Amino acid sequence: MRGCGLIVEYNPFHNGHKYHLNKSKAMTNADCMIAVMSGNFLQRGEPAVIDKHHRAQLAVSQGADLVIELPYYYAVQHSELFAEGAIRILSLLKADSICFGSEHGEINEFYEIINLINGNYREYHQHLKNALKEGNAYPAAHEAAYRKIGGNFLTIDFTKPNNVLGTQYLEKILQIDPSIQPFTIKRQQNEYHDQSLTKPFASATSIRKELFSNKPPTDIAETVPIQTTEILNNYRNQFGGFHSWDQYFSYLRYRILTINTSYLKQIHGVKEGLENRLIRSMKDASNFQQFMTNLKTKRYTWTSLQRILVNIITNITKADIEEKLSGSPPLRILAMSATGKEYLHNLKNEEIKFYTSNKKPYPDYDLDNRIASAYYSILETERQIIAKKQDFKPPFIKA
Amino acid sequence: MRGCGLIVEYNPFHNGHKYHLNKSKAMTNADCMIAVMSGNFLQRGEPAVIDKHHRAQLAVSQGADLVIELPYYYAVQHSELFAEGAIRILSLLKADSICFGSEHGEINEFYEIINLINGNYREYHQHLKNALKEGNAYPAAHEAAYRKIGGNFLTIDFTKPNNVLGTQYLEKILQIDPSIQPFTIKRQQNEYHDQSLTKPFASATSIRKELFSNKPPTDIAETVPIQTTEILNNYRNQFGGFHSWDQYFSYLRYRILTINTSYLKQIHGVKEGLENRLIRSMKDASNFQQFMTNLKTKRYTWTSLQRILVNIITNITKADIEEKLSGSPPLRILAMSATGKEYLHNLKNEEIKFYTSNKKPYPDYDLDNRIASAYYSILETERQIIAKKQDFKPPFIKA
Repeated sequence: MRGCGLIVEYNPFHNGHKYHLNKSKAMTNADCMIAVMSGNFLQRGEPAVIDKHHRAQLAVSQGADLVIELPYYYAVQHSELFAEGAIRILSLLKADSICFGSEHGEINEFYEIINLINGNYREYHQHLKNALKEGNAYPAAHEAAYRKIGGNFLTIDFTKPNNVLGTQYLEKILQIDPSIQPFTIKRQQNEYHDQSLTKPFASATSIRKELFSNKPPTDIAETVPIQTTEILNNYRNQFGGFHSWDQYFSYLRYRILTINTSYLKQIHGVKEGLENRLIRSMKDASNFQQFMTNLKTKRYTWTSLQRILVNIITNITKADIEEKLSGSPPLRILAMSATGKEYLHNLKNEEIKFYTSNKKPYPDYDLDNRIASAYYSILETERQIIAKKQDFKPPFIKA
Repeated sequence: MRGCGLIVEYNPFHNGHKYHLNKSKAMTNADCMIAVMSGNFLQRGEPAVIDKHHRAQLAVSQGADLVIELPYYYAVQHSELFAEGAIRILSLLKADSICFGSEHGEINEFYEIINLINGNYREYHQHLKNALKEGNAYPAAHEAAYRKIGGNFLTIDFTKPNNVLGTQYLEKILQIDPSIQPFTIKRQQNEYHDQSLTKPFASATSIRKELFSNKPPTDIAETVPIQTTEILNNYRNQFGGFHSWDQYFSYLRYRILTINTSYLKQIHGVKEGLENRLIRSMKDASNFQQFMTNLKTKRYTWTSLQRILVNIITNITKADIEEKLSGSPPLRILAMSATGKEYLHNLKNEEIKFYTSNKKPYPDYDLDNRIASAYYSILETERQIIAKKQDFKPPFIKA
């Protein structure tokens, strides 16, 4: 069986994702569509609007055959580690190809940029280092370094986030498992950051904006598959609402103002005196936006700060991350179809261990427990207990 | 000027406290009534119904001349350390006497019990140790040890909490500063734990019960001075309500379920595997009462567990406590009258430092900041910011 990997967050699953899923299957001629999906917290340092179980079930209802969790310590990270974690997992799963969405849409130029970087590896990294030292955030530094080694002739626009991610995927494929063949598809939906809801291909950002505007999820109906509306409605009925940073603000505030500074320095991502700035910025902040505005400096992108805040909420330390990154990522199945089940069966590699719930001996048992507790903490207590129980049940299997 | 020390919590100030204050002044012939008062969290491991600033102002309006904070690391502790901190502060303030309320009401028998213990010091402590090893909580162990060294002939009832505290005060006076003369007054109000509101002397427990029954504070009017009703009303109007464990439950739940076990073991009071029991007891608990019922064992009293939970909410570690207990307690003035001001002026001891707000160089600056943040965390964010600002203002001074 041929497996094609998709690297996704599905926050929430919309028509653009559906297009990408169908087109990838056709383009790669795959039998099994493998989605490596972030868990309850996402790469941009945000809680997912609904939990990983509901998003995984939704993905399988829309044509994914296997949904594997990208562990927190790869998911809530800058794009390089995010890409590394996903490619490692797809390599373990013996995927034949991956297909990523990009604003550019042509795979050849991605190869050219990688060749250019690999051919000028030292210079590239020296330029990158200098640009970071000058106080640039990672994406701007990357762009500057790439131009300095002569990347100007290429037409890829690196201010577009999915072009950046695509480059990282390719780089990691070449490093980790060159047997995986990369494909790319031009994104149909609007710009990632677009706030307005256009039909039928709206950005996930604009869809989330609608979700939090207190309108019924039916208002997004023309931009998402019907099952998305259904699952969003179910989630809201069962747990009381969707997840966004605003709801975590009181915990974030409490935590930052009661933590001891020496411990705050141990939280993953806190460095260079940021601990004092975090505490200072919180003192007079009465909402998340205000706090972020107090906190923001040129040195940090908005998303890198949000990732640090997720680490504070989930209480994930540098030591936690280092320990986990030193090992091979575990393969946690969140949902699958009959085809996905067959694919796993055919792997027949006895060294590959799969985990179907957050029970021992799943190696991330303790970490995932704490992360899930943090994620569900904003629900009513009774609902927290119900929501948490999903982690210990077998994954959703579509007959 | 003659100073008389009272060791208080005033949670909230009621007719029994008023009686005790007036009678103490008359009995000791003091010019200045010095109240050493717990801050925002109390000896029984509970948040005070209103903050320390409002309780201090109220105390001064009722005849106290000087309200000094008993620091957290003495206040939220078993009775021995609580007594030690209070006596140390009164010694620094050169108090001539203390006058404590007790169920017994006669000072002589308190002397006799201390003499008995001091005369049989080793045996007493061996019996105490054995009784603790057998799994008894501290008060029961104390009672057993005292009976074994022949204390049966005395009529003091050590199941009464204020008799136990009185013994500790006397013991600490003899150890720290025998120049302080102890007095005691028989308590007029009902049993400490009494739930029913009797007039005019009701227990603080029954008054708090009324406060949280959603009735207006006027229902307690016959059991408290009119200023108590006024200040309670002010506090509710300004900050939205009173403080009780139930409101902190979501923070407690969040914290216990996201903390790492190794750090939980560092929290002051967590020992002998209690860290695992804390986490286990929280999993299916949807309110404070349920959690406490899951947690309770014979080895721990309800109040000793509550004190540990306060340490979790305030994030106070063993290292924090050890560091603070190794030094002399700082003297933080929460409120005073003109007489109190004169008393301080007359002390004329240049080595005595006073602190009038939570600003550097106040040595507990950082600790108190964190404790206050935890205490106010249950208020709306805008109100948290306003409430916290009280800590940086000069103390209330009654003209």
